[in-house]
Amino acid sequence: MGVDLGAPLESFIEVVASKKPTPGGGSVAALAGALAAGLTSMVCRLTIGKKGYEEVQDEMEDHLAASERLRNRLQGLIAEDAEAYDGVSRAFRMDRSTPEAKESRAAAIQQALREAAEVPMRTGEEGLDLLQLVHEIARKGNVNALSDAGVAAHLALAAVHGARLNVEINLASIKAADYVEGMRKRLEASRGKAEEVHSLAVGVIDERL
Amino acid sequence: MGVDLGAPLESFIEVVASKKPTPGGGSVAALAGALAAGLTSMVCRLTIGKKGYEEVQDEMEDHLAASERLRNRLQGLIAEDAEAYDGVSRAFRMDRSTPEAKESRAAAIQQALREAAEVPMRTGEEGLDLLQLVHEIARKGNVNALSDAGVAAHLALAAVHGARLNVEINLASIKAADYVEGMRKRLEASRGKAEEVHSLAVGVIDERL
Repeated sequence: MGVDLGAPLESFIEVVASKKPTPGGGSVAALAGALAAGLTSMVCRLTIGKKGYEEVQDEMEDHLAASERLRNRLQGLIAEDAEAYDGVSRAFRMDRSTPEAKESRAAAIQQALREAAEVPMRTGEEGLDLLQLVHEIARKGNVNALSDAGVAAHLALAAVHGARLNVEINLASIKAADYVEGMRKRLEASRGKAEEVHSLAVGVIDERL
Repeated sequence: MGVDLGAPLESFIEVVASKKPTPGGGSVAALAGALAAGLTSMVCRLTIGKKGYEEVQDEMEDHLAASERLRNRLQGLIAEDAEAYDGVSRAFRMDRSTPEAKESRAAAIQQALREAAEVPMRTGEEGLDLLQLVHEIARKGNVNALSDAGVAAHLALAAVHGARLNVEINLASIKAADYVEGMRKRLEASRGKAEEVHSLAVGVIDERL
C-alpha cells in the first residue's frame, strides 16, 4: 500500500477517489499544506532579487529556507499518514483467539491509534507555522504574487482544519482519558491560533491587492 | 509551459515552489478542488454497498457520478489556468512599435485578461457545486469516513476563496467597467453561498463525529 510521491499527479488523485482508504483525508490535508508551502516558496523566490524589494532580501531568504523546510516535512507527512492508518488496520487484524492474544491486540490497537493521531497533529502544527510565514510574506512579498500568497493562506488553513478532524477521529477510540485531554488542548490551541493568523493574512492581502 | 498531470506528484509541487509563475495559485486552487472531489468520491464509494446504508444507495450513486464529473472538470482547470496566464504573458510581449500595433496589443491584453479571470471563476463555481455535494454526503455518508468528508469541505472552501483571488487580480487590470462589475457580483454571490454551505457541512460533521 503506502503512498508514492513519484506517482503521476493524476494517478494520485485517482487513488484518493477510489475505494481504498489510503491515501485519505489525513494524507490530503498534508498535501494541501505542502502545496501551500510550495506557493509560499514561489512568492519568496519572486521577491528575492526583485527591484523595489531590496530591503526585504535577507528576510525573504530566511522565509524561503523556512518554507522549504516546512514543505519537506509536510510532503513526508503525506505518506506517514497513510502508514499510520495502515498500522491501525494491521492491529485490528491481530489474533484474538486467546485472552492473552486479545489483550495484546487491544494494546496494539491503542498504540497504533496514538500514532494515527500524532501524525495529523504534526500536520496541523506545521500548517500553523506555515500560516505565520504566509502572513509575513503577504505583508512584505512581491505584490504581483499576492494572490498566490492568498491561495497559500487558504490552503494552509484547510490543512490545519483537515488535520484536526483526523486527530479527532482517532482520539474518539483512545481510552486513556489524560492523553486524549492533552491532545484536545493542543488541538484547540492550534485551531484558535490558526484562525487568528489566517484572518490577519487575508486582511493584509485584501489591503494590498 | 503548461502543466503536465502525468508528472510525478513530487515534481509538480517542486515546480509550484520554483520561480516559474505557472503553475501558480490558480492551478493550485483547481487542484485543491480536484482533491476535495476525490475525497468526496471516496466517501461515496465507502458508503455504496455498505451495511446500514441501504436506503441511501441510489442517492450515493448519483452523488458519486456528480463528484466524478466535478473532479474531471477541476482537474482540467489545473492546466487551463496555467494556459490562461501564459496567454496574458504572450499578449504583453506583442509588438508595440507602431500606434496600430500598440492598439492591437492593448486589445489582446484585455482579451487575455478576461480569459485569465474566467478560468478561476469556473474553478470557484465548480468548488461551490462540490461544497453542496459534500454537505449531502456529510449528512448521509458512511460515518467512518466523516473526517474525509470534512477535509473535502475545508479544501473545497479553500478552492473557492483561492479562485476568487485569482479572478480579482485579473479584474484589477480590466478596463471595461460593466464587465468587471458583473464578474464582481458573481464572485460575491458565490463567496457568500460557499461560506454558508461550508458552515452547514462542518456543523453536520461535528454533530455526527
